[in-house]
Amino acid sequence: MTTFMRREIGEQPAALRATLDSLLPRVGEVERVAEGTRQTLFIARGTSDNAAVYGRYLTEARTGRLATLAAPSIATTYKRKVDLSGVLAVGLSQSGRTEEIVETLAWAKDCGAKTVAITNGGPQSPLAEAADLALCTEAGEEKAVPATKTYTTQLAALAVLALGLGADVDAADLDRVPDAVAKLIDDPGDLEAVVAGLAGKPGVVVSGRGLAFSTALETALKLKEACYLHAMGLSYADLLHGPIAVVDEDTPAILVAAGEGPTLPGTVALAERVTGAGAAAYGIGGGDGLARASTAALNGPDLPEWVAPLGLIVPGQLLTEALARRLGVDPDSPRGLKKVTQTE
Amino acid sequence: MTTFMRREIGEQPAALRATLDSLLPRVGEVERVAEGTRQTLFIARGTSDNAAVYGRYLTEARTGRLATLAAPSIATTYKRKVDLSGVLAVGLSQSGRTEEIVETLAWAKDCGAKTVAITNGGPQSPLAEAADLALCTEAGEEKAVPATKTYTTQLAALAVLALGLGADVDAADLDRVPDAVAKLIDDPGDLEAVVAGLAGKPGVVVSGRGLAFSTALETALKLKEACYLHAMGLSYADLLHGPIAVVDEDTPAILVAAGEGPTLPGTVALAERVTGAGAAAYGIGGGDGLARASTAALNGPDLPEWVAPLGLIVPGQLLTEALARRLGVDPDSPRGLKKVTQTE
Repeated sequence: MTTFMRREIGEQPAALRATLDSLLPRVGEVERVAEGTRQTLFIARGTSDNAAVYGRYLTEARTGRLATLAAPSIATTYKRKVDLSGVLAVGLSQSGRTEEIVETLAWAKDCGAKTVAITNGGPQSPLAEAADLALCTEAGEEKAVPATKTYTTQLAALAVLALGLGADVDAADLDRVPDAVAKLIDDPGDLEAVVAGLAGKPGVVVSGRGLAFSTALETALKLKEACYLHAMGLSYADLLHGPIAVVDEDTPAILVAAGEGPTLPGTVALAERVTGAGAAAYGIGGGDGLARASTAALNGPDLPEWVAPLGLIVPGQLLTEALARRLGVDPDSPRGLKKVTQTE
Repeated sequence: MTTFMRREIGEQPAALRATLDSLLPRVGEVERVAEGTRQTLFIARGTSDNAAVYGRYLTEARTGRLATLAAPSIATTYKRKVDLSGVLAVGLSQSGRTEEIVETLAWAKDCGAKTVAITNGGPQSPLAEAADLALCTEAGEEKAVPATKTYTTQLAALAVLALGLGADVDAADLDRVPDAVAKLIDDPGDLEAVVAGLAGKPGVVVSGRGLAFSTALETALKLKEACYLHAMGLSYADLLHGPIAVVDEDTPAILVAAGEGPTLPGTVALAERVTGAGAAAYGIGGGDGLARASTAALNGPDLPEWVAPLGLIVPGQLLTEALARRLGVDPDSPRGLKKVTQTE
């Protein structure tokens, strides 16, 4: 029996195509709502927060606008007003119904920010209704608890957001994404070897940097929620500041990089350091260089760095789904989790 | 033989007193350098980044200024200029010699920010020399690789920074910190029970929220670097968005809260949820309520929430040092780590 998670992973090319078809014509609306703002503040939790990390790096690296992540508890728990004039606040929630995020986006507006919602919950969802502009993803219903197609379509919406903020990229690169994702689903690389290498291990370090940092965080979250693995997602710079100590024969590393870009050499060097220390390193993407430096490797998408995260997460999703089944966990409904998470 | 780490933990009351004596008279200098800025951007890595998380929550919750964390790779790897006019950039490095942080602070100045350095490396360190204003901590030399007194004195400097930014707090609360820390070192609570509960476990989740989130992250980092534990530091809001699935009989939770403040009730509720699911919950601080909801508890400082993180980390430091020895690790020099970390 095919799990919902596996089926939804397979629906990503179509979901991405539908989302891009719907949102690319709306770049001008993003431009207009951003008028007069100078920086971007992302508001999210969980998988959506990992998507926000992509939005944050993409915006800073390609538009020159300051882009950072909000601390929702300032709004919801400390209930403190903050001066947000000149800020474009972007709230992300797949359901559009996570109260903490809806409340924080409303707080941002109240604090003087312009607001954008990115949600799969439709234009009538509370998050969309709270925002000046709603960018709705077209992922369709998602049944598995671990988010897959609602995550990658969020990344697509964030890429459109960056276009509206004046990113110095070629928008045509987005057209290549659905096919590149389909190709990865057909041929993710040496999945069996990585599943076998992780089965029975209590933990794993997942590392990437810059634009690929979002993929490392999201891969780690997937492995935590569906495989109960102690998966620690870290920028490789932070990894070297202490946590590298945990990598050993019982704690392999998964290293993620686009096939090009300035973070690739450091990721390859990290793989060499990990294997040199006697631990296993599993590469995702990073081209031949990372694959050669790794114990076993999963393929990455053939895409420019700025859109690579839309495909780079796919091997991690397939790995999570296969590893969960190997471990006897139903990936569609991990223990302790519901589809919509409410925190105050 | 006493380890350097244990000795340096014990030196914190004196180090905090010396740092506060040196920096409290300089609040006016912070006011002047911050003139004309509207928000704060912290630049740090590793332990210093955990200190920055305290600075970020403290600044936002008590001054109403937006405060966020920088992504150093935008400066050092992507080499992209970002508009930082109106920004007060605060770089933190214990040595003052971490090139990535020095380079990113110089980038921030170049991008239009006013700049502050917080370092234990002295006024002649590269970070101090790169900044408009240097707040030097007075921790003295630190020999153990895991930072202890250089971390808590960074928090003291950040508290002084917040005073200069107009925080609505009583500065006199800072006078109580050294004694409160001394009291925790004398009587950390049921340390033996927590050490015994963690020995042999592969991983642990460490959670807190708001101002105490910094303590959760720093406790997790200490346990990773000196005990090789898969310690995952998470806001409790993020924990509920997926990672709660990893908590089980082999994966206890450490929950951190000040003895007062708006994040305490949620932390107590989380402890009840964890023990209700059959896992162990170890409380740090949080008063009688968190202790009662926990399997075993470490004491927190008798301090108002805004300065509580200066003491809340101390039981986690003592726990790390004792657990490392129990596991046969020399806490002074964990594998793979050096005192000053260089990343590009």
